[in-house]
Amino acid sequence: MGEGARGLGRSSPHSPASRYNILMPTADPLSLSYALAQDAQDELAAFRAEFAPLEPGLLYLDGNSLGRMPIRAIQQVRNALVDEWGTQLVRAWGTDWWDAPRRVGEALAPLLGAAPNQVRVADSTSINLYKLADAACAAQATASRRVLLTDALNFPSDLYILQGIAQARDLELRLLPDDSTDPTQTILDALTPEVCLVSLSLVTFKSGYLYDAAAITARAHAVGALVLWDVCHAVGAVDIQLDAWQADLAVGCTYKYLNAGPGAPAFLYVRADLQSRLTSPIQGWWGTSAPFAFDLTYTPAEGINRFLVGSAPILSIKPLEASLEIFQRAGMPRILRKSAAQTAYLIALIDHFLAPLGVEVVTPRSPQRRGSHVSIRHPQAYPLSQALIAEMNLLPDFREPDQIRLAVTPLYTSYADLFEAVQRIAQALRENRAQNYSAERKSIT
Amino acid sequence: MGEGARGLGRSSPHSPASRYNILMPTADPLSLSYALAQDAQDELAAFRAEFAPLEPGLLYLDGNSLGRMPIRAIQQVRNALVDEWGTQLVRAWGTDWWDAPRRVGEALAPLLGAAPNQVRVADSTSINLYKLADAACAAQATASRRVLLTDALNFPSDLYILQGIAQARDLELRLLPDDSTDPTQTILDALTPEVCLVSLSLVTFKSGYLYDAAAITARAHAVGALVLWDVCHAVGAVDIQLDAWQADLAVGCTYKYLNAGPGAPAFLYVRADLQSRLTSPIQGWWGTSAPFAFDLTYTPAEGINRFLVGSAPILSIKPLEASLEIFQRAGMPRILRKSAAQTAYLIALIDHFLAPLGVEVVTPRSPQRRGSHVSIRHPQAYPLSQALIAEMNLLPDFREPDQIRLAVTPLYTSYADLFEAVQRIAQALRENRAQNYSAERKSIT
Repeated sequence: MGEGARGLGRSSPHSPASRYNILMPTADPLSLSYALAQDAQDELAAFRAEFAPLEPGLLYLDGNSLGRMPIRAIQQVRNALVDEWGTQLVRAWGTDWWDAPRRVGEALAPLLGAAPNQVRVADSTSINLYKLADAACAAQATASRRVLLTDALNFPSDLYILQGIAQARDLELRLLPDDSTDPTQTILDALTPEVCLVSLSLVTFKSGYLYDAAAITARAHAVGALVLWDVCHAVGAVDIQLDAWQADLAVGCTYKYLNAGPGAPAFLYVRADLQSRLTSPIQGWWGTSAPFAFDLTYTPAEGINRFLVGSAPILSIKPLEASLEIFQRAGMPRILRKSAAQTAYLIALIDHFLAPLGVEVVTPRSPQRRGSHVSIRHPQAYPLSQALIAEMNLLPDFREPDQIRLAVTPLYTSYADLFEAVQRIAQALRENRAQNYSAERKSIT
Repeated sequence: MGEGARGLGRSSPHSPASRYNILMPTADPLSLSYALAQDAQDELAAFRAEFAPLEPGLLYLDGNSLGRMPIRAIQQVRNALVDEWGTQLVRAWGTDWWDAPRRVGEALAPLLGAAPNQVRVADSTSINLYKLADAACAAQATASRRVLLTDALNFPSDLYILQGIAQARDLELRLLPDDSTDPTQTILDALTPEVCLVSLSLVTFKSGYLYDAAAITARAHAVGALVLWDVCHAVGAVDIQLDAWQADLAVGCTYKYLNAGPGAPAFLYVRADLQSRLTSPIQGWWGTSAPFAFDLTYTPAEGINRFLVGSAPILSIKPLEASLEIFQRAGMPRILRKSAAQTAYLIALIDHFLAPLGVEVVTPRSPQRRGSHVSIRHPQAYPLSQALIAEMNLLPDFREPDQIRLAVTPLYTSYADLFEAVQRIAQALRENRAQNYSAERKSIT
């Protein structure tokens, strides 16, 4: 049994597992009855009913790709359509709508460990990354400081954005290879005075590795670099403390753990004392000091609003607002506790049931170094993932070349879900269901 | 009576007005009965019922700021929430969602006079303008061709975007003043071989002036410049023929005459033979040739998709799809005929009822040189607009320093609406209702 399972054993006398053991001392942590008992005492269990019900029997472990729908989003969106757009018409801009990037940004800020006036909801992650990375390079690059640092664990879309900026600004994009056993240390070692900006995914999309953000930020500042965190695979399930880390910049999406729906708007964070030093390359009218003065010359707003561009997508922002209200009630401490407990439990299950069938846990076993998804490796991962979806009623997701990601989303993932998912994967492997599916990749484009 | 009213008289024997006159030879074009008779024979009248009903008595002439809600948007958005997101979950990306920027872009293309594979729905107008203007400058600027040409009639947000690009690329932004009686000729005269890009609003947001796009495009090409049209205030109500004009680039929003809702995604057009020459400064993963290969290096897609960035805002795109289906049934020829007839009628009403009260028509009287809104000027325009909203149940919009815009939106504007609106404005002026309101501007920010 690996470190994941030992994680179950690291419980204090007051942990849920030990409390349960007191009640039912015979429970085997690798039994369904253990999972059900954990669910029975799950302090977040009631939130599961706030999400749209799944088809009977479906197990959804892809909440890190697209979170499930909060039921209250239906009414909120309907209100936006019927009461606001349909009835108030253009007048609604003067009330609820115009303020949405700020209002929803401030509701999101506590999940990022951010004090007010540093977070706004806007655009897509890639566009926000472009704005902030370009602004950072413009402010920080000098003749001798011309390196934009990242690594191959970063989400490829981030690399594309950074490549474009490096090319346009004649900077060097230094892309560290994906071959380190300690990615945090590798970044620390690469932070030299040549670096103007280091940009990383706080939790990496494949393995779920979680950087030591405080250490990297401190080292970056020591050498005169700025830090930009992409928190897409972290926000809503991982402890993020941007202010405490003294992070400079961050961006992220809202459709993964934040359950805001397909293509919901993203967000950006700029530390308060940096805001006046940076200007967006995309000089949008929502980022001016007086958008309805219609001045002919751009004057950036004071503060965080200068990073806005154009009209907020009102319908798409409503489910985010509905979802953040759930997070507010649930509280990040409870979510973080459950994420840590469930990822440890999932790793233990994989070690026990799947390792003998050729499955390897890729995700770091240290709770301090992992996010809220567990990635497994198997040579047949691609056809296996097809079989799980088509024959086992299990939705995980596949990542090239040989990984399957299983997401823990504390607001709606049960322990029984995790137990049952591992049983289905085991069955698919035992019955070699992967053989029914081609290894040839199907593209959705 | 001005040229607008004469426009009513320029009817052929087969025009609606003349047909009506045959039926009711006594009808005075400046009477309500004339307006009602025009509505009775309006070939688009049935479409009015496809939009959410207004509060009783409310007149909405601000469809060029935010179009009214198509009722069918409610069901389409609900389907996206419940059937797609709620039930299909992440699997919906593989079917309906991923294809949305293309599918909806192609549905929009006929309204732009664009053959397939040149239009995509994405991001906001400002972001699309940034992408295309920057790409055009990168491709077209040379040591001796360093002018980005525009004029002060352009929407200020466009000027802000162009200012940012000019500054970043060390180009000259040549901003022609707003003092010409013939803005098309002024642009033609300013198109010299120094110009790399000319960027204009096809219909200007204040006066509703419509450029001669074919002439400007031809002249731009003759001097080696590219042309980028912002068609926000035109699309859905004005005859746009991008292919026939041989236009290079265009951007626009969908929440004005296209009725797609607050902050609905915008669109971009790149002429087919230009697409491979231009690359987006924002190198997004949706713009790559194989988005799910997760290659570490950006490779732009062939064709128009290279101008996409990140995930499409699915909920916000649905009403656009619903609305375009209405346009498809209504047909642009009928919409254009009604827009021309109604703007002429509105100008005639203003000349007759409001000119004696100190109101001046700012919008060009030539139907070839105007869009689908009519702007009026009055010294008390700001407090007057407040009075119209608060006391007269009329929603127009105000533009600095002294203009009020009245939009004709052929799918739901009736002749009686226009007649009644003018009567209410006349009453407000006669009763000096403006005196009840401060001239001090209220900002919604």
